[in-house]
Amino acid sequence: MKLRVRETPIRVPGFRFAGVACGIKPSGKRDLALIHSETPAAVAGMFTRNRVKAAPVLIAARHVRRGRVQAVLVNSGNANACSGGAGARVAIAACRQAGIALGISPYAVVPCSTGKIGVPLPAVPMVRGIAAAVRALDPNGLWHAAHAMRTTDAFPKVASRRVRVGGRTVTIAGLAKGAGMIAPDMATLIVCILTDAAVPPTALRALTRAGAATSFNAITVDGDMSTNDTLLVLANGAAGNAPLVPASADGRRFGRELAAVMADLADMVVADGEGASKRVRITVQGATSDVAARRVAQSVARSSLVKTALYGGDPNWGRIVCAAGYAGVAVDPARMGVRIGGVPVLRRGEPAPDALVRRAAAVMRADAFTVIVDVAAGGRGAATVTTSDLTPAYVRFNSAYST
Amino acid sequence: MKLRVRETPIRVPGFRFAGVACGIKPSGKRDLALIHSETPAAVAGMFTRNRVKAAPVLIAARHVRRGRVQAVLVNSGNANACSGGAGARVAIAACRQAGIALGISPYAVVPCSTGKIGVPLPAVPMVRGIAAAVRALDPNGLWHAAHAMRTTDAFPKVASRRVRVGGRTVTIAGLAKGAGMIAPDMATLIVCILTDAAVPPTALRALTRAGAATSFNAITVDGDMSTNDTLLVLANGAAGNAPLVPASADGRRFGRELAAVMADLADMVVADGEGASKRVRITVQGATSDVAARRVAQSVARSSLVKTALYGGDPNWGRIVCAAGYAGVAVDPARMGVRIGGVPVLRRGEPAPDALVRRAAAVMRADAFTVIVDVAAGGRGAATVTTSDLTPAYVRFNSAYST
Repeated sequence: MKLRVRETPIRVPGFRFAGVACGIKPSGKRDLALIHSETPAAVAGMFTRNRVKAAPVLIAARHVRRGRVQAVLVNSGNANACSGGAGARVAIAACRQAGIALGISPYAVVPCSTGKIGVPLPAVPMVRGIAAAVRALDPNGLWHAAHAMRTTDAFPKVASRRVRVGGRTVTIAGLAKGAGMIAPDMATLIVCILTDAAVPPTALRALTRAGAATSFNAITVDGDMSTNDTLLVLANGAAGNAPLVPASADGRRFGRELAAVMADLADMVVADGEGASKRVRITVQGATSDVAARRVAQSVARSSLVKTALYGGDPNWGRIVCAAGYAGVAVDPARMGVRIGGVPVLRRGEPAPDALVRRAAAVMRADAFTVIVDVAAGGRGAATVTTSDLTPAYVRFNSAYST
Repeated sequence: MKLRVRETPIRVPGFRFAGVACGIKPSGKRDLALIHSETPAAVAGMFTRNRVKAAPVLIAARHVRRGRVQAVLVNSGNANACSGGAGARVAIAACRQAGIALGISPYAVVPCSTGKIGVPLPAVPMVRGIAAAVRALDPNGLWHAAHAMRTTDAFPKVASRRVRVGGRTVTIAGLAKGAGMIAPDMATLIVCILTDAAVPPTALRALTRAGAATSFNAITVDGDMSTNDTLLVLANGAAGNAPLVPASADGRRFGRELAAVMADLADMVVADGEGASKRVRITVQGATSDVAARRVAQSVARSSLVKTALYGGDPNWGRIVCAAGYAGVAVDPARMGVRIGGVPVLRRGEPAPDALVRRAAAVMRADAFTVIVDVAAGGRGAATVTTSDLTPAYVRFNSAYST
């Protein structure tokens, strides 16, 4: 799915952005993004749980643990993963150079990389690129940074909201990169979310985890979990509001808008699933718990047979029920139900008449719809996972591209 | 991969076979197989662990638990799964009718179904078909039965061995059905293995489990686990050997040959993976245990990104390492190694020079090769899983076919 993107200007007070071409991508396209906050910003981070972590992920996690940072440096075109011992050295040198150029500690720079695995990240373009990016920093440069984060992305991914907290209107703006390799537990993503709200690091961590649970951790494209997944949220307090308390009315409102920005970005990532032609929400209900419901939703969302049926517009509830059955949690086949785009194709274990199946097939021609699976396990557990279809284009794309 | 199959005659003393067309398949092709043993045969069975089990699976498991059976009835074209309450009634009626026609107890008949999910299995063709199959039973009919078990199979799957035990030469012959929906823990399979050896039920169960662990439970095509997987082994003792003891030299020899028949059939199933063009063995070593190694091998074997790279002939060890990383067990990225068809492309965490990568790409043009992943976790755990590539043909096929 190709989304049309209008690049409306977005500013986040106290932040400046740059996106430059430094020569990592052979195409000569922009491949280095820099985000800088005028003052130290509270930071929350979530990282891939893959045991094979790219060098910058390990370094970023260390810097984020300090609670406050002041810059994010993202290169695309090279994941700096599995690149031998040299990978960490290049990432550390990049933080040091950016820190010097910006007049901040190297520990206040968070490094991210995305692109090919197993190729050494060349030091010379990085050095040149960092110098150029620092010079190019601009409060209006957000879209430049979004472009510089792209690898296989068909379009840059940006979302923003404004919300009133503590008598001030604050902005929450997010930039994301991600298309393929989207995994159940953390999409292959680089996501940077920036706000001028004042949020203490502990509160920011809680709000970030909550938002990710219903967005980036609830999407799947091909079930692969990358070595580089990184989600960062920076809050620099430039709005001058009283520091947010998550449990307050203001805190809840801010949390909702932060989660909405994440959900918008996550939807864009699924829509951009490599070769995907449809975005489908799998909602599971009637499970013994939300956790059980989530396992069923993931199982259905990941099934190659379900995903090819979504592509083919085939209301094949048998494959859906089958995938629910091997999720490893309680389901009652004799009472299960499946609705596709609101049309019941299986009711209390009994297949629907052909007329309804044909209606469901008609619904599936849309490029976005919802599948509801009632597993009838006697509970009220529910969960939603968003997935894409599996298309011949996905296969062609991934057999030709060397990640 | 299209295998050429020569239908050389195979007889198993004391067994007769039939494969007839009874009208379940709209194409008019053979769709009912019957296997009959002159005398009650010891039986061992393994069934899908999907929570959604087809009606015949539940009935078959009950009949197998009795230890001895005398017939197997397999219909193709309809899985008799998720077909409401009527499914069990049709399966039970089929056992009763076959029992009466063969002069045996209905509990001595094991029912199996494979094909479309969610469509009621029509009773009338079954009645007609069972009568015709009983009339057609023939000691030379094994290939007819194999044909009648096919659904999306491109070719019938038969393997056999002869082995000397207790002074007698016995035959072990297997018939299998399976192409798509091949899952980590039990391929979507109907497998019937027949031998004239005398093997007590307990011994047969142990040997069956051991054989399945390295064959049907070590293959993956698309990661989906079906509602109908069934593996049956029948031993009727017509050879007149002294009943086999698994721990004896004879027992071990017999077990090896039984496992070999299973492995041959499993290889045919992977080769027939829907749309697959390559068969690839993923061998994992250096894990902390065999179980850990198996988890890594399954993770690599199931990764869509790895499988598309296999299709594209791309020696993309980054994707392999990445999939190993999210298997959830210990791996050491800094010391991992990957060999493709014997060519090292990653050695102790360091990428190989381009010349080797090119040699690996050349190896990957073959339609069968091995990938060895050393996870360097400091142990000696090892496991092998056989997988197929993910091709545009798989997607086209499964988006058009209603299972």
